[in-house]
Amino acid sequence: MPSRLVPDIVVGRLPLYLRALSEMADEGKEITSSQELGERLGISSAQIRKDLSQFGEFGKQGTGYNIEYLASQLRRILKVDRIWEIALVGVGDLGRALAHYAGFLDRGFRIVALFDNDPAKVGTKVGDYVVQDIDNMVEDIRRRGIRVAMLAVPASVAQESAESLVEAGVQAILCYAPTSISVPEGVRVEYIDPVVHLQHMTYYLP
Amino acid sequence: MPSRLVPDIVVGRLPLYLRALSEMADEGKEITSSQELGERLGISSAQIRKDLSQFGEFGKQGTGYNIEYLASQLRRILKVDRIWEIALVGVGDLGRALAHYAGFLDRGFRIVALFDNDPAKVGTKVGDYVVQDIDNMVEDIRRRGIRVAMLAVPASVAQESAESLVEAGVQAILCYAPTSISVPEGVRVEYIDPVVHLQHMTYYLP
Repeated sequence: MPSRLVPDIVVGRLPLYLRALSEMADEGKEITSSQELGERLGISSAQIRKDLSQFGEFGKQGTGYNIEYLASQLRRILKVDRIWEIALVGVGDLGRALAHYAGFLDRGFRIVALFDNDPAKVGTKVGDYVVQDIDNMVEDIRRRGIRVAMLAVPASVAQESAESLVEAGVQAILCYAPTSISVPEGVRVEYIDPVVHLQHMTYYLP
Repeated sequence: MPSRLVPDIVVGRLPLYLRALSEMADEGKEITSSQELGERLGISSAQIRKDLSQFGEFGKQGTGYNIEYLASQLRRILKVDRIWEIALVGVGDLGRALAHYAGFLDRGFRIVALFDNDPAKVGTKVGDYVVQDIDNMVEDIRRRGIRVAMLAVPASVAQESAESLVEAGVQAILCYAPTSISVPEGVRVEYIDPVVHLQHMTYYLP
């Protein structure tokens, strides 16, 4: 397993490469180069070559990368050559937007279960699924073997929701609540917080 | 301006520190340490001390950091000791969720203008603001001097929307469209794409 040695920051760039390759394929391109990928992503071609070389030999010197082949290899490496079922916790505005988002399925994910604690929402249909009571969450997720979840709840209940997800066997949580949650070793958490990105940019504004 | 020399990856962590400090302040705490911050954020205390030392001397050896003071200094460094007006482009499910999101204002941002190209949406009120026709966008943003925008449009129109924003004088774009956009030198773009985070996590799932 050479992949165990790859720095996390490199792993984090692979989804960007895959997205750019998928765009190129949609545009009808068949071959690309680290230069072209780099221009599209704002990453140096040397960095891209170095990142990819950690996982194998994907292109021939001088002939570039076959887009379909490299994309399929990245899907395999990222384990999205399959569909991961996702549980979505919190069906407010954001949760609804995520439930309706069309961009998950062809990139390896499908939201298959929605949970909320609001009696007015439980039993209603959002997208293709009926919102379930959060009291049933642990049992339902465990029974279905769901391992990936998105947390779109207020910050005040993010920690307890995360603990329930972990209890249910979830191993990867994408947290939209603007707060840090703590989880046991072995559970991965990534955060999406627009303000973190906005503040990162305003630092540079004159 | 020593801050010009600070690596971007360090700058990118400052908003996380600020968010954790704000949480601690809300909890009634007054003093913290790099150890405590690090535990909350999953970042080593050595890294936090090193990052903060790039901007000055914020704590005394052995007494830790005064939370309010450090937070106020980070707000100043990130330039969120003021309110930035934001233009939001695209008022679908996600745009609506952002327009209703309560977490911007006390962290330096306020959405003040909404734009969409759908005649059925133009003129309707979302949150506190009336959706405007995207054809008026460049003029409106320029007149008001708005410099920060959020892009919540489909991938297919993200590039042209970004070009209009740049034409209008916007210098920082937070892009929710699942695609890469190219902008001139001097304009910052950050991306929010849930699938990129999900794929980053599935890499590690057994």
